[in-house]
Amino acid sequence: MANPTAAEGRDGGPWRSWRHVTKLDPDRPITPETVRRVVEGGTDAIMVSGTLGVTRKKVARLREMIGPVDIPVVLEPSDARLVEFEGFDRVFVPTVLNSGDPTYIAGKHAAWAGRSPDILWERVVPEAYIVLNPDSAVGRLTRARPLDPETCAGYARVAERYFQFPIVYMECSGALGDPRAVQAIREKLTRATLFYGGGIDTREKAQQMARWAHTIVVGNVLYEKGIERYLETIVK
Amino acid sequence: MANPTAAEGRDGGPWRSWRHVTKLDPDRPITPETVRRVVEGGTDAIMVSGTLGVTRKKVARLREMIGPVDIPVVLEPSDARLVEFEGFDRVFVPTVLNSGDPTYIAGKHAAWAGRSPDILWERVVPEAYIVLNPDSAVGRLTRARPLDPETCAGYARVAERYFQFPIVYMECSGALGDPRAVQAIREKLTRATLFYGGGIDTREKAQQMARWAHTIVVGNVLYEKGIERYLETIVK
Repeated sequence: MANPTAAEGRDGGPWRSWRHVTKLDPDRPITPETVRRVVEGGTDAIMVSGTLGVTRKKVARLREMIGPVDIPVVLEPSDARLVEFEGFDRVFVPTVLNSGDPTYIAGKHAAWAGRSPDILWERVVPEAYIVLNPDSAVGRLTRARPLDPETCAGYARVAERYFQFPIVYMECSGALGDPRAVQAIREKLTRATLFYGGGIDTREKAQQMARWAHTIVVGNVLYEKGIERYLETIVK
Repeated sequence: MANPTAAEGRDGGPWRSWRHVTKLDPDRPITPETVRRVVEGGTDAIMVSGTLGVTRKKVARLREMIGPVDIPVVLEPSDARLVEFEGFDRVFVPTVLNSGDPTYIAGKHAAWAGRSPDILWERVVPEAYIVLNPDSAVGRLTRARPLDPETCAGYARVAERYFQFPIVYMECSGALGDPRAVQAIREKLTRATLFYGGGIDTREKAQQMARWAHTIVVGNVLYEKGIERYLETIVK
């Protein structure tokens, strides 16, 4: 991946052309052979990311296993202590806009920025998460507020037009979201890139979601159903 | 004020040249003569804003009393039901980044955006409030979290670099803030305009704060000490 430039700004960035992103979790077991098949399988980027049980050591081990590759490898830290620029093209920093706990909206971010004088901001990509499944691990951790369709669309618009985030991320982890909800959000957005993640474990589900999301994110399928099922989700 | 343009963006905007802003509260009594003297006194902009007891009717009455004027008149609504574009150059929409209640960070905004299809986003100016006095009206309402200097600086950096707000607003209402804290924040910012409000009721205090803030905001002095004391705060 080329170095970020000042022109990249809020609206642009290489993620605009990503159709399929693979999330690898540093806390889950995976073999070098599986990682190799992921890297060569056609996904557009690898995101190193996990909600619980992640340590710097586990991140480093996974990054090493991925090795030098031609596709972008980005880190999505769940906590400030996991931030690492070395070895990653970019650091995708989430905020959970519908969190019930301000810590996950701006609190951790402020604590991080307050004590870290050396943040490479030009390599930080802000992501506005909208967490749709309050019963998922991330939903429970962040105390995500349940959303009616109107408020969900409101969060998407606010993410793009008020906060001006380059990425709006609909997170349905643990279950496939309603494609009509993804469609409704997509139709509200004019500039942001819409990521969708959650429940994609077949080619059909991947196609359903890729119809409306700019980018689909898969991960669990790899750990739970294996590499062949994972490869089915690569639709473009 | 000229109409906003696409080029205005996040970093620019007429507020960059404002040194002194006057907050008029629709819920507090004021005479047409006092309003006239404010308008002619040399302030750079009038902000119609109040925390409690504000209604659309009171806003309209105050806007009418101000009349057609050569300086910008902006609205800073404390709630979505008060948003009104008619008669105002822009609508300054605050988020309280250190609020203990997500409602004041993104919740009200999402509810507003979800049910309002007609928001004139090009006239919406996002402000990142950092509320420094938890015992003030706005501090109690938003359950503002007390901040050590490091975390306070962290919020300022996050406001500018992560959320990319054009305005960072240090709100000390009820007491004069520590000029060294304002200096510390100013030194962290490279693009955002730094507003400071709270406790400015003499020429000396105005000068102290204007030394570090790009823009000082005064209001209470007018209601509590009168027009002559207010006029002393106009330093540029």
